[in-house]
Amino acid sequence: MNEEFSQDEKNGFYKAVFSRRDVRSHFMPEPIDDKTLSKILNAAHHAPSVGFSQPWNFILIKDVETRKKVKESFDDERKRSATLVEDPKRTKYLSLRLEGILSSAVNVCVTYDPTKFGPFVIGRSSIPETGIYSVCCAIQNLWLAARTEGIGLGWVSILSNDDLKKILEIPEHVVPIAYLCLGHVSEFAEKPDLETVGWLPRLDLKDVVFYEKWNSLDDPTWNQIRQMIVSNLDYA
Amino acid sequence: MNEEFSQDEKNGFYKAVFSRRDVRSHFMPEPIDDKTLSKILNAAHHAPSVGFSQPWNFILIKDVETRKKVKESFDDERKRSATLVEDPKRTKYLSLRLEGILSSAVNVCVTYDPTKFGPFVIGRSSIPETGIYSVCCAIQNLWLAARTEGIGLGWVSILSNDDLKKILEIPEHVVPIAYLCLGHVSEFAEKPDLETVGWLPRLDLKDVVFYEKWNSLDDPTWNQIRQMIVSNLDYA
Repeated sequence: MNEEFSQDEKNGFYKAVFSRRDVRSHFMPEPIDDKTLSKILNAAHHAPSVGFSQPWNFILIKDVETRKKVKESFDDERKRSATLVEDPKRTKYLSLRLEGILSSAVNVCVTYDPTKFGPFVIGRSSIPETGIYSVCCAIQNLWLAARTEGIGLGWVSILSNDDLKKILEIPEHVVPIAYLCLGHVSEFAEKPDLETVGWLPRLDLKDVVFYEKWNSLDDPTWNQIRQMIVSNLDYA
Repeated sequence: MNEEFSQDEKNGFYKAVFSRRDVRSHFMPEPIDDKTLSKILNAAHHAPSVGFSQPWNFILIKDVETRKKVKESFDDERKRSATLVEDPKRTKYLSLRLEGILSSAVNVCVTYDPTKFGPFVIGRSSIPETGIYSVCCAIQNLWLAARTEGIGLGWVSILSNDDLKKILEIPEHVVPIAYLCLGHVSEFAEKPDLETVGWLPRLDLKDVVFYEKWNSLDDPTWNQIRQMIVSNLDYA
């Protein structure tokens, strides 16, 4: 467990991180190989979890009738959310492709079950939300594993969780955390779609790092690394 | 962006996933190289985020006085949470090493700022928590990048967020999501500590995967992959 990573192994990890995309419009119809999908799910299952509670489940969905119902929930929610933004942003918003529910090979709903190994879970008493945070870590493992295997993934968050729970028969105490679309893709875009269309810019790393306290940028202990980050030295 | 991953590159990614540990007792005092820390932070910053909102900040902490205050919060919360569990689990719980706040080289508090690029963030209207989910994806990127660089990471969740906000001067509207300890380590353990001490077992993958609906295991569409997962075929 302790040998260092070779340069190729490191490159593999960073390649997954930097070329991972939220895929909406580039799905291809061919199925995902069973072994590939198992590997992706197994990577997700090896995420960290608070108190080793492993509170996630993965519901794999192919059925078209189920997906059509999920797509209806998306359509309703998109219409509703469009009322929250003013033109010209509204028109731009409505022109964006934001889901691949029917065009992807497989949908996966990832859920959080707070009762698993409960009620006392080590590390979850002070901040109960950490159970959900564990599920999100599993989702990111899943996403990166998919990229490594050449499989695209899109997270659809314009959905009603009430609808999802009804459609997938999820019990009252379980929380749907993510609805994911997976499949082969015609390409992984060079940049995130929302960056390409000019919706929002990518922030510089220097804009998200503070030193010792919130909003503090000038702590002398951190001068050297701060210089490195500000000058955008090639740390990628 | 589209070439396939070589076998070595894939191995690198999976090696990070399967050998990543939540480190508490194996930290070494030597500092983390600035370039390494920058690379780890940059990987975190390249996580997916709802509506490309990049709502995370990373507060880097070395100051011993700050860390002592955080350690006090941990001690208080651990005592409090121990009252929630009965012996013999309580004694076992209290014997576990659960943080490396002072023994690690650097602490990092990762926060969520819902006002960034807001109030309208694409994909956050139906499920507002997706902003927090994005921050968790960044944390998992950070964790895996650290492992790739040979740096251990421990997530301390036995803390009061109110204490953290006071200590780090985090404004009212910003939410602390994770308090992380990073540093070189004497070893990455073969298994999670809580598995080793027999606190909880690792679940089989078959126990967390459903087909088409919650709790459904026998959908014929999925027979083949289910067989693969149940028989624990070597998908790792």
